[in-house]
This record gives sequence, structure tokens and C-alpha cells, in this order.
Amino acid sequence: MAVKSRNRQWLVRPWNDSGSDSDRRADRLASEEPMAIELNDVRVATTMRTPGNDFELAVGFCFTEGLLEGAEVKQVKYCASGSAVASDFNVVTVMTSGDAPEPRPRLTTTTSSCGFCGTSEIDELVAKLPRVSGDPLPWESLAAAPLRMRSSQTLFDDTGAVHAAGVVAPEGSVTLVREDVGRHNAVDKLIGRMLLDGDLPATGLGLVVSGRASFELVHKAWAGGFRALVAVSAPTALAATTAEAAGMQLAGFARNNTMTIYA
Amino acid sequence: MAVKSRNRQWLVRPWNDSGSDSDRRADRLASEEPMAIELNDVRVATTMRTPGNDFELAVGFCFTEGLLEGAEVKQVKYCASGSAVASDFNVVTVMTSGDAPEPRPRLTTTTSSCGFCGTSEIDELVAKLPRVSGDPLPWESLAAAPLRMRSSQTLFDDTGAVHAAGVVAPEGSVTLVREDVGRHNAVDKLIGRMLLDGDLPATGLGLVVSGRASFELVHKAWAGGFRALVAVSAPTALAATTAEAAGMQLAGFARNNTMTIYA
Repeated sequence: MAVKSRNRQWLVRPWNDSGSDSDRRADRLASEEPMAIELNDVRVATTMRTPGNDFELAVGFCFTEGLLEGAEVKQVKYCASGSAVASDFNVVTVMTSGDAPEPRPRLTTTTSSCGFCGTSEIDELVAKLPRVSGDPLPWESLAAAPLRMRSSQTLFDDTGAVHAAGVVAPEGSVTLVREDVGRHNAVDKLIGRMLLDGDLPATGLGLVVSGRASFELVHKAWAGGFRALVAVSAPTALAATTAEAAGMQLAGFARNNTMTIYA
Repeated sequence: MAVKSRNRQWLVRPWNDSGSDSDRRADRLASEEPMAIELNDVRVATTMRTPGNDFELAVGFCFTEGLLEGAEVKQVKYCASGSAVASDFNVVTVMTSGDAPEPRPRLTTTTSSCGFCGTSEIDELVAKLPRVSGDPLPWESLAAAPLRMRSSQTLFDDTGAVHAAGVVAPEGSVTLVREDVGRHNAVDKLIGRMLLDGDLPATGLGLVVSGRASFELVHKAWAGGFRALVAVSAPTALAATTAEAAGMQLAGFARNNTMTIYA
């Protein structure tokens, strides 16, 4: 029943400026499909995602967006029935014990990689979260994490078009990796997996991401209780400010065993 | 009155594995703030964006999302009044001649760089747009575009954290560039500028983007009437399928005068 992450074959033509038209060859492209997330039968989001780990994504999104508010996840299911067609696997419903507040469909939508918006009170949400706890991670472990995650990025190897997120242990190993065309989806899948396994909050652990560190990624890492966030590229100013408010270690440009420490 | 794109000073600490703790130095981080977009006083989106070119972003978003449906833009304004505080510049209202359909606040939100979702009928939206027209652009012009855009990426030079989008003329020059922390915002700002200047549809012109080509970027390029889209990184499968449906040239991995042609 589970939808597989699968890359698609595509005929492409390499081009270079020598003027010679090369032959076509088969290439693999990252799969990208819409998925609707419902919480207790109320639709709360639609996201473009790489199929696969859909239940983790749905649970992780509801958790990091603060929609669960401590309620227990009882069931996660596709809308698919016996005569299911493929698109039925693009709606996932998260059912809780009934303690979750009535999800309020948000009247605003959002662009720019931002599932967080649509709620206007950033300060209010930030104030809801406790400062992160646990021992700081050694900077060496964070600096080495992107390269250690790299060997698990199987979809990226194929396509070059997907982001990855991984869990960094204090001694530096990267223990869990998720990939998606959306940076935030990769983080939500990872946090959803940890929630389903009873591994949250991620006290004393680090989160490594393959791209930049936006405000929203810091916010999701904070919601998951991560002690540190390390990104391959740059953070934004709001990301750095938020990490400081959270008491979270934040590093960027982690490449070739050098990096920049922001918080 | 206009909000400036400004990067923020931040004290950082370079780190390397030689064990030496370097001194702190000042770095510049990309600014990222929420902006709400209203159409005829109905809030239609909230996005995390780089302040600056806010009116272009609001107009471009409404246009590429199909919310204008041919109505003329009469006025664009901040909610700021005489005693404005900074946050008043984070709400922009687009007023039309009244021919625009009542904007329907979408009940679903979206993550993963996708302002397009929240409407479940992708096929339906795709079917609404005519195939792109005009002469194909020379592949040479598209291959050279990322490097030609690079000299205009002033925010990126400072911070390494912002994406860019540019207009490519048939002979290869890059004539208009916009930057933003969000890939889609950069495209919306650029298309918004062209709409305000009466330069749409972008018949016979190309669009160059600094990142990957997702479905949504192809959709926005299509809405703007661009003949071609060239990306520095990979497209997704849905992006390639959509470009083919649009009759749009699509190339990726455009680096050092080589690239890959997908459509």
C-alpha cells in the first residue's frame, strides 16, 4: 500500500557550446506530486512533495505546525479504498485521540517554502516554545554532518533535485535521513518518524539540512526540541535571531570541514 | 515610503577543524520577513519574503496565481497610515477595477515552496493556459543566462542566501533581475514588474532562475507567457511534464556553458 519514492525516466539532450547536438539519453527526474494533509478530517494543508514516507510527512507537519498540541496520534491513513486509483494516495488523514483542538483551516496561503505563515503572530508562536535543552553538540560533529549525510541521499544521487535532512548524534554519526523536493517536507518527514517512534523531543541531538536555513527550518527544529541546526548554505537574519531566542546552536556553510557559527 | 532590501549585520565565528577558535567578525545575513497580500481587501496569502519590491511581489503573485483573471490593477498600497510602524509595511493590498472575481480565500495552506497548491485541480489550472508562443530562444542564449544574471545578484553577493530570477532576451542579454529568499517570490516580483510596465505576456522571452525548476516555477513562467525556462539546477518530473504541455523550452544544470535540455 505504501507509495514508493520513485524517480521518473525522462529523455534529455545534453547541450554544450561546441555546437554539436548530442544524442538523447535517458535521465532520471525527481517525482513531485501534491499531497493533502487532513487532521481529524479537516484539511489543513496541501503540499508539493516527493511521494514516499507520506505518513511521516503528515504527522510531522501537524506536529511542527503546533496543530497536535500534545494529543496522541491514533491512526494515519490514506483516503484510498478498495478500488483505489493512484491519486487516492495523495490525501493522508491523521486521527488523534480527540484531545487535539479543532484544527482551524487557515484562511491564508503561503509561498516561499513557508508552511509556517498564514498565522500572523510569529512572536506569539515563538513564545510558546521552551528554550532547547541538553548538552551542546561538539562543533566537530556538526561540521562533519553534511558529508556523513551525503551517502544516504539516494534520491539526490539520481536526480540532483531533492533536499535532505538528517539527525546528528553528539559523536557525529548521522542516524536518520529523509529526502524530499521540499526542504521543509524533508524535515517534517524526519520529525514525523521520530514522533511515531517516541523519540521526541530530540534533546541533545542536531539537525542537518542540505540547503539554506530559513526561519521556518529553525522553527521546525525548535518544535522538535533539537539542540543544534547545521546547514550547508546560509541562514537568513530571522533564522539567526530565532535560533538565538531558542538557545539553539546554528551553523551554516558547512563544507569541507569549515563552517560559520551564527548562534 | 518604499521598503528597502537590506541585509542585516550579524556577528559570526568562522570555524575550522584545526581546532583554533577564530575571532568573531561581522557578516551580513539576508533579511526575511512575513508579508501578507490582500486583493480587494481580502487576504489571499502570507509569504516569507525579502523586503523590497513588495508591490511587484503582490501584483505578480495575484497574477501568476490566476486571481486577477484579466482585471486591471488600479492601485497597490501598504496598509501603513500616518503613524505607521515598520510592521505596517508587511501588508500590501492590490486593488483592481472591480472586474476581478471575488478572491476566494483558500482553505488549505501549503509548504514546500508551493504557492500554487491549495487548489486541488492541477490539471484544470494547467488546461486554462494557452500554449506559449513566439520563436524559440537560441539554446546558446539560455546557456549563458545564469552567468550573465550573476553580476546583478547583489543581495546574493552579500549573503549567499537569496535566489534570483531574470528575463532573458533572444540575443542572450539578461534585462531584469529580482532577488528574494524565496525562489517563487523572485519570479513573482519579476513578473509583477513586467505586468506593471505593460510587458506581459513575455512572448519570445526566457526566464532564468538560480535554483531548481519545480512544477510551480514552470507554472508561473507559463502564466507569464515566457517561451523558455532555464534553471541552474535540476527540474522535477512534474516540471518537465508541465513544460512539455505548455510547449515551453526547459533546460537545467546550466553551468559553464553546458546544460541539459528537458523540453
